[in-house]
Amino acid sequence: MSAEIVSTGTELLLGQNLNTNARYLSERLASLGISCYFQTTVGDNQDRIEQVLEIARGRADIIITTGGLGPTMDDLTKEVVAELCGRSLQLHEPSLHHIESFFQRRGRSMPENNKKQALIPEGAIIIPNHQGTAPGFIVEEGTKTFILLPGPPNEMEPMFEETVKPYLSMKTKSDPTILYSRLLKIVGRGESVVEDQLRDLLMEQSNPTIALLAKQEGLHIRLTARAKTEAEAKELIKELEAEVVHRLRPYIFGFDQDTLSGVVGQSLLKKGKKLAIAESCTGGLIAHEITNEAGSSAYFLLGVTAYDNSAKKALLGVEEKTLQSHGAVSAETALAMAQGVKKIAGADIAVAVTGIAGPSGGTKEKPVGLVYGAIADDAYSEVKEFRFTGTREIIKERTATAVLNWLRFHLNEKP
Amino acid sequence: MSAEIVSTGTELLLGQNLNTNARYLSERLASLGISCYFQTTVGDNQDRIEQVLEIARGRADIIITTGGLGPTMDDLTKEVVAELCGRSLQLHEPSLHHIESFFQRRGRSMPENNKKQALIPEGAIIIPNHQGTAPGFIVEEGTKTFILLPGPPNEMEPMFEETVKPYLSMKTKSDPTILYSRLLKIVGRGESVVEDQLRDLLMEQSNPTIALLAKQEGLHIRLTARAKTEAEAKELIKELEAEVVHRLRPYIFGFDQDTLSGVVGQSLLKKGKKLAIAESCTGGLIAHEITNEAGSSAYFLLGVTAYDNSAKKALLGVEEKTLQSHGAVSAETALAMAQGVKKIAGADIAVAVTGIAGPSGGTKEKPVGLVYGAIADDAYSEVKEFRFTGTREIIKERTATAVLNWLRFHLNEKP
Repeated sequence: MSAEIVSTGTELLLGQNLNTNARYLSERLASLGISCYFQTTVGDNQDRIEQVLEIARGRADIIITTGGLGPTMDDLTKEVVAELCGRSLQLHEPSLHHIESFFQRRGRSMPENNKKQALIPEGAIIIPNHQGTAPGFIVEEGTKTFILLPGPPNEMEPMFEETVKPYLSMKTKSDPTILYSRLLKIVGRGESVVEDQLRDLLMEQSNPTIALLAKQEGLHIRLTARAKTEAEAKELIKELEAEVVHRLRPYIFGFDQDTLSGVVGQSLLKKGKKLAIAESCTGGLIAHEITNEAGSSAYFLLGVTAYDNSAKKALLGVEEKTLQSHGAVSAETALAMAQGVKKIAGADIAVAVTGIAGPSGGTKEKPVGLVYGAIADDAYSEVKEFRFTGTREIIKERTATAVLNWLRFHLNEKP
Repeated sequence: MSAEIVSTGTELLLGQNLNTNARYLSERLASLGISCYFQTTVGDNQDRIEQVLEIARGRADIIITTGGLGPTMDDLTKEVVAELCGRSLQLHEPSLHHIESFFQRRGRSMPENNKKQALIPEGAIIIPNHQGTAPGFIVEEGTKTFILLPGPPNEMEPMFEETVKPYLSMKTKSDPTILYSRLLKIVGRGESVVEDQLRDLLMEQSNPTIALLAKQEGLHIRLTARAKTEAEAKELIKELEAEVVHRLRPYIFGFDQDTLSGVVGQSLLKKGKKLAIAESCTGGLIAHEITNEAGSSAYFLLGVTAYDNSAKKALLGVEEKTLQSHGAVSAETALAMAQGVKKIAGADIAVAVTGIAGPSGGTKEKPVGLVYGAIADDAYSEVKEFRFTGTREIIKERTATAVLNWLRFHLNEKP
């Protein structure tokens, strides 16, 4: 069984709103094992809505629309669907009563044009709306099903959960399949390199399927199995997951909901180590990411953004001659910053970064994107040189990701 | 002239990603006066991509695609468009060279399958990609134009601005109606309150139109005028803008491309004041935002994320008895943190925040979301109490925004 999502609303075509409904519905459909092959967005225009619904009816079994059920003249979805299915619109007393009492509860009387929302296509199944005035509808026309939902997510989502989801589960009972997905999250390897390493698996994929998703902070590998039960699906994924992990182990930092800063935080906690951070080019971003994790106060002591050299000297104890002879962006300065912040924080382990985020400030020897990172703990310290490209913000992000991933390695390898 | 946006990517159909590209492109097209009547999303499937592009070609003059230009086997957009237009794919040496040097700059050699990205449809116009490996293309086929862009927004957006926008401006010269938009950016007033204050303007709107866009960091008011020339459009907007500014002046921090941290940075620069920041609950986010601005090293000296009390004492000189009698989350501690970081940084002005970001750590007296902020300069210091709601990350963001906005006020009002 396949579905198409049709979002109506000129504001979407003007780029005034993000289409969160399409994402929400796609996710729910996948969890029900219903394939969604197309999403379409169209404005509040009768002819174009009709054209889009015609095409959708031709290539999908279930057409789910959002928007266009409001009281105004440019709310047209219901009218177009009724016309396409040759149904008349009839006044639905219970809905009218619901709308009237909706306004009464707010101490207002119902505006005349809200009456329009109580008109429903002949023979439609009503989808009650407890958050707003517009009811939704399910219209079955031969082998095709139109499901009409309002646009506001706070109305649409509960309506989907309460009425549409059970309805679709019934429909798919005959062929009860669910889709179960597992995410493997990678840092430090590019999409094309990973594809090389997984080429054979990608070629012969069927069930489970395997997909590579490039993300700002790294790469996700999605394994998706189709089965009758979640247990079965998990079983199907197990073997493929083991093989992928085997091939890419050092680069896989986590699974599903894991974040890099969360994984780092957990191993700090497990090892009972307290962290301090000294930043220059990242300007506080690394500390920000570490502290996005609930409970990070258990392992994070101090972050210093020493943007100015005087701060590097006065606070972190970087020596004038280090800055003079090697420069603020150098392995020596990075190391001194890490050791300095570790000392003043009384931390067990510290990381530091200094680099050139750009757009200006680069030279031939030290171009924009050159970054030195350092890790220092009681037993050990190490420095790394990185070279990144991109805008200022991207260089900051890539630096934070690389340094956190390096810290993850370090915590796993060292006792 | 009309356009259709076609987004490719199975992750969109599985609801794993929000389609931010469609929104971005729609907004840019509107600003160029090009009507976008449809947005379509399709998976990484050759037949379905072909079907969607056929339909798009039938109903739009310009088809803009995002995604499917990567090095992997399920990157298919270029191949399908070449086939539709009967063009062969040819190796483009400059692009190949660009891709090779992209990997060289990272000290790596180019994986074999990246070569695929240097294949371009015969006779296509190249859209250079300075952030990544995949170039984009413009393929003109009779009266129709295909514009192919990569999926990652950090690559797609600059490519649109640098190459596609000027190309489309040329194309639309013949029929010069342009849409000119002006953004007024607001912090400290919610959407519904602003809607009340502008209700009459919202009711009467025609040309220019007025739209409220709720954003993470505040609220945008967009005024959009349609006219033959930009000068005319600006003239149309002038009066309405003056009225909106008159009603909301104190809450408007900037216009169009302005960012709050950028506006703060500019007034620091103008006043020749150097800034230091002490953070607790925001964990470095305020410093991160300040340093997202190019050139911030001219006015930002030091950020200290004193997550642990020992750091608040040792580094910022917050006294034990202050922490004992008032607690780490208190007006007194915030003030001491601001004065402390100002002193050690040798700054002219300092801000500090301490609060409870949650989800745990709240009490009846000091609930999650309670935040104290402080500003200290040579002549003056002040403390403010804030109460925010939301997740940990949202509380961090709202705190950073509120404190930066307060600093903006302070810099405007004090000599």
